[in-house]
This record gives sequence, structure tokens and C-alpha cells, in this order.
Amino acid sequence: MTAIPLSLQALSAHAFAPFGDVLQKEDRVQQIINYGHTLKFADLASLDLGEQGGRPAVHIYHGLPVSLPLRIEVMERHPLGSQAFMPLQERPFVVIVAPAGAAPGPTDVRGFFSNGQQGINIHKGVWHHYQVTLGEPADYLVIDRAGPDGNFDEHRLTRPLVVEHVPWLGSASG
Amino acid sequence: MTAIPLSLQALSAHAFAPFGDVLQKEDRVQQIINYGHTLKFADLASLDLGEQGGRPAVHIYHGLPVSLPLRIEVMERHPLGSQAFMPLQERPFVVIVAPAGAAPGPTDVRGFFSNGQQGINIHKGVWHHYQVTLGEPADYLVIDRAGPDGNFDEHRLTRPLVVEHVPWLGSASG
Repeated sequence: MTAIPLSLQALSAHAFAPFGDVLQKEDRVQQIINYGHTLKFADLASLDLGEQGGRPAVHIYHGLPVSLPLRIEVMERHPLGSQAFMPLQERPFVVIVAPAGAAPGPTDVRGFFSNGQQGINIHKGVWHHYQVTLGEPADYLVIDRAGPDGNFDEHRLTRPLVVEHVPWLGSASG
Repeated sequence: MTAIPLSLQALSAHAFAPFGDVLQKEDRVQQIINYGHTLKFADLASLDLGEQGGRPAVHIYHGLPVSLPLRIEVMERHPLGSQAFMPLQERPFVVIVAPAGAAPGPTDVRGFFSNGQQGINIHKGVWHHYQVTLGEPADYLVIDRAGPDGNFDEHRLTRPLVVEHVPWLGSASG
């Protein structure tokens, strides 16, 4: 089946608001703490980790790079908690999301990219593609919910999408 | 008052265990997830963020560098929650801690350094120096407890300590 082209837009707090939070210093209020030695950008995300006996957990994900074109065929969601990703080497990465609620159709899917200094916090129930790394291997700090219940749904799109190029790598054919 | 020299040791999970967790991939079990595209190093820290109406919060700290020698005069603790720091540019940093419990004397204080790929999670009540950056400015992702109650104590050491050199910068006089 022919894949639908999906273009990416730069992450911003405003554009990403329907799906979650952007963890960044830009456009955030700074507090001066630690006797003047630290600028604190406080409370950057709405973490939602305690539902149904859940607890916050922190992981490192090491992403093994894939090549372009990137086919988007399956989306997933965590119905019981949020999930945050913060890049640990300032490497840009792709974020593929669709609104919370009913299983998404292909045209519900949106693509973003982080500039490498931006993390994301995907809100509870928001559909997303699993974390994809393009280019070099990359590590991410992940903050999500650990708990006894199932916190994972998966949905195969009725028609795949394809990302042909990303700003930091150029196009698949280039 | 003459400061007592404090030398630093490399962070390891074993050496740091009395004070908290080391967030690192090294020596951790890896799971393969995301259809083989991600290595997951799971559940790296005991986060303790819910006490007395607390909730998990995430911040970015931007550290403004100080010069060597580094004088250690005041220690602090968070009696109601843990506090994790993960470096966002793989820059080494200093960790100064003392055991939870009674206010520390100068000889209770221990110094460590992260290799830049290691984060730390300081356990509830463990005394520590505020986050210090040496060399270049550096960002850290911080995971701690937000809540309505006081979650901060400070203690001035009866005698200061001094860090004269760190492995990634050499000595103050060098």
C-alpha cells in the first residue's frame, strides 16, 4: 500500500500542547537559585504517574539508528500515565503523535522534530510512535509510570505514513 | 579557618549506594524493545516523590561555572523526597554528599565525580552540596518532589572543606 508522506514541524510548546509538554529552557521563566550559581527552569511538565497504584520510574533508552525513509505503521499509547523523553547528547530526534481518544487514522498523525535541546512529555493516552533514532545512536532519559497494570495499547494504521527527510540528515535519496 | 582538603572518587553504583543511585547504562541489564530498535536500561533509581502530598516534578538546571578551588561550606537536604540530576551534555560534574541523619560534621562529607554519562539520584534526607558546575556551563535534568510542605534544610559545616582539583580540569594552581 502506498504510504502517505508525513512532513515534520519544529517542536514548540504551543504546537505540541495538544499532545504534551516540551521540556526546554526557551520561553520559560528562570529562577536564580544555589547562591546565584544555577538558573532553574522549573516544573516543565505535567507528569501523570500515580494512577492505579503506579509509581514514577526513570530509565535510559539507547536508540539504535534506523535509515530514511521512516515508515510509520504502528502507533502506541500508555492509557495510565505520561511518558517523558529527554535527549542526553543534544541530538535531534523525531516525535510522531496523534490525539488521545479513539484509535487514530493516518490523517490524525502529526510529526515533529526536537532541536536536540528539547525533550518531550507525552500526556497520558496520547498515541505516539515508539522512540525512533535517525543518524547516530542516541540516549534518552525516560520518565514514565511503573505499575502492576497493563499500560500499553498498540494500533496498526489502516495506511502507513512515511517520513522522507529530516532537517538534520537531508532526504533519503539525497 | 583552614579548609580540609576533599578528594573526589569516581562514581560507581557500589560506592554511591549509601547516598543514592547512579543513573547509568554501565553494569545494568538491558532489555530490547521497540521492535529491536531500542536498548532499555530500566528502573535506574528509587524515586521517592509522593510523601505528604508530594508529586513528581521535572526541571532543567542551568549551571553557571565556578572556579577551583571549590569551598564546601554549607550542606542541604530534602527531608521529604529524592532528587535526581542527569547531565544533558555529557559534561563531568562534582557530587558532594554526607549520610542522612544528624547534621554532618566535616569528616562525614564524601566527594564523587560523574564521568558525564552518569546521573545521580540523591535519596530522601541525604545531605548534599547544591549542584556545582566547573569548567563550561552545563544543563541537568532534575527530577524531584514538588509539594506544599517545607522540603529543605541547610547546615553550615563547623569547618569548610575544599576541592583543589577535578580530573577533567586539573588543579587550581596548575
